[in-house]
Amino acid sequence: MSNRFSCLPRALLIVLVLALGVARSNVSAAEDPLPSWNEAPAKQAVLDFVKATTDAASPTFVPPEARVATFDQDGTLWVEHPMYTQVVYCLQRVPAVVEKKPELKNVEPFKTVLSGDREAMAKLTMPDLEKILAATLTGMTVDEFEAEAKKWVGAAKDPRWKRPYTDLTYLPMQEMLRYLRANGYKTYIVTGGGQDFVRAYAEKVYGIPPEQVVGTAGVTKYGYDKNSKPFLMKEPKLLLNDNNAGKPESIHLMIGRRPYASFGNSTGDREMLEYTRAGDGTRLAMLLLHDDGVREYAYGPAQGLPDSKVGAFTQGLYDEAKKDGWVVISMKKDWKRVFAFEP
Amino acid sequence: MSNRFSCLPRALLIVLVLALGVARSNVSAAEDPLPSWNEAPAKQAVLDFVKATTDAASPTFVPPEARVATFDQDGTLWVEHPMYTQVVYCLQRVPAVVEKKPELKNVEPFKTVLSGDREAMAKLTMPDLEKILAATLTGMTVDEFEAEAKKWVGAAKDPRWKRPYTDLTYLPMQEMLRYLRANGYKTYIVTGGGQDFVRAYAEKVYGIPPEQVVGTAGVTKYGYDKNSKPFLMKEPKLLLNDNNAGKPESIHLMIGRRPYASFGNSTGDREMLEYTRAGDGTRLAMLLLHDDGVREYAYGPAQGLPDSKVGAFTQGLYDEAKKDGWVVISMKKDWKRVFAFEP
Repeated sequence: MSNRFSCLPRALLIVLVLALGVARSNVSAAEDPLPSWNEAPAKQAVLDFVKATTDAASPTFVPPEARVATFDQDGTLWVEHPMYTQVVYCLQRVPAVVEKKPELKNVEPFKTVLSGDREAMAKLTMPDLEKILAATLTGMTVDEFEAEAKKWVGAAKDPRWKRPYTDLTYLPMQEMLRYLRANGYKTYIVTGGGQDFVRAYAEKVYGIPPEQVVGTAGVTKYGYDKNSKPFLMKEPKLLLNDNNAGKPESIHLMIGRRPYASFGNSTGDREMLEYTRAGDGTRLAMLLLHDDGVREYAYGPAQGLPDSKVGAFTQGLYDEAKKDGWVVISMKKDWKRVFAFEP
Repeated sequence: MSNRFSCLPRALLIVLVLALGVARSNVSAAEDPLPSWNEAPAKQAVLDFVKATTDAASPTFVPPEARVATFDQDGTLWVEHPMYTQVVYCLQRVPAVVEKKPELKNVEPFKTVLSGDREAMAKLTMPDLEKILAATLTGMTVDEFEAEAKKWVGAAKDPRWKRPYTDLTYLPMQEMLRYLRANGYKTYIVTGGGQDFVRAYAEKVYGIPPEQVVGTAGVTKYGYDKNSKPFLMKEPKLLLNDNNAGKPESIHLMIGRRPYASFGNSTGDREMLEYTRAGDGTRLAMLLLHDDGVREYAYGPAQGLPDSKVGAFTQGLYDEAKKDGWVVISMKKDWKRVFAFEP
């Protein structure tokens, strides 16, 4: 309490303090762009970054057209555990694929998936999974795929929360997307997931239009149907693997600008975060740590947590973050709320 | 003249007509979004298209986020004759490349290019040209390439007009870009030219930012310099050939939406125009015919004009345009002015 108030009667002082307190909290509630974030270094780093890059008086001011922020999706914008949503989609699409191609019914790995035996499915190898991905994500036109993916996303539910997968986005990250956009940043998803899959819902779920979704992509092939109407067929051939080094490479290909801010959560995001930080001026790299086994999941060996098939997060990644000035977000400590549907 | 005026004295009638005429021409001069276009069917088709897709009362109204227009560059937005500007760039870069790699000095095709013998250079084969492109467009980081391309574009001049190549954009097409943007369309370049090359000047020259330039692209490779600073190296390996079927394929990859309007001038644009027209609602496909040997160049066998190494325009393409409702623009008849620097 300042000395200026020391001559006032105590009761008046209390009233004054209460009034100031109320006024201050009203202002901050109205102005806080990140209300689901605790007042801690991670939140402060974001506020400082936005000020440093958007205040015209700042020596590291960035012109609006260059303001690019890139976000990994799985494990950064929404839940990736225990299985990437797109893999769930592919597994659930198998019956429909087999219905169209009955010859696959007794062929592995389709037979195992159709059996519904979870233990056997957990043992599927990477080549098995690739066969399932090829069968469920290709061999149809891009328009057919989009319609199918949209239909599934609108109906499927996560077994733990019993809600649509699209409800499982992190409220603090939704606030981050809106806050950066409100400050002139163009927000992109840069995902190891399938570009066409994520584009089917990204506009509705994140406010991110298809042209701002960069992801793993297969070759498409232009052709004509029997009425000479052109189509684009999804081919079972990989064009861009948008993981690790593929992320900055695709950012250059698809955006052509180095991001000023990047957000990731696993070793697959390492190169994107490095590439972002290596630019001049003020650059923000944030790494989300899944350390909240109660509200979400806790995984990652760097924290003495169990490792996971998804979202690999090594000690080396953690060390690089600390060494290179990336900001580590602790889900447990930095987030007041995780999901919009929970209090 | 209508019967309603027949009772008026002749002098008054003349004054009235003049006044109406002046008023009308003032209004149209102020409102005409395409002043360099003659009042003819091509211009009218554009005005009709914009009304049909942006008037909320139209049955083929398109929501703003879906308004995508794609433009070929060479021969559509600027002069491509007698040689693509990027090929000029590559040829002129040869001395600098040989200075760094003296072992190329006596090796073909570099030897021929260094000789300056135009007749010999005109005989260079496609594989020769590919060697020159690989040597001048790859083997450097994306940042180094951007700086070099920007420097060259700022200094090089076209030999016929003795002006920077960037002055050789077509004024009527610049008006088209602005008109579509003013009506909520996002304008993209979709070029057979190098994506990185066009991105170096597209924002300044066309108001089109790098993320809206889709072009032929090579692989880039993420690596680290001796200070562990990451870079993206341009590799001599083709990733996307943005010609013919490659155009709609890249549009899907990079934009993820089917264009409502497309503009081209050669067989390399055929599939993009087809793909555009095959969408539902109102779609505009425009094909620019180079039939003005005085103000620009005249080429293309469909018009009984000499064929060209660049901008192939066959009878088949012309027939398809007529059959499928594409709008053919005659440079000679549809454009009042060709360049902004000419009256």
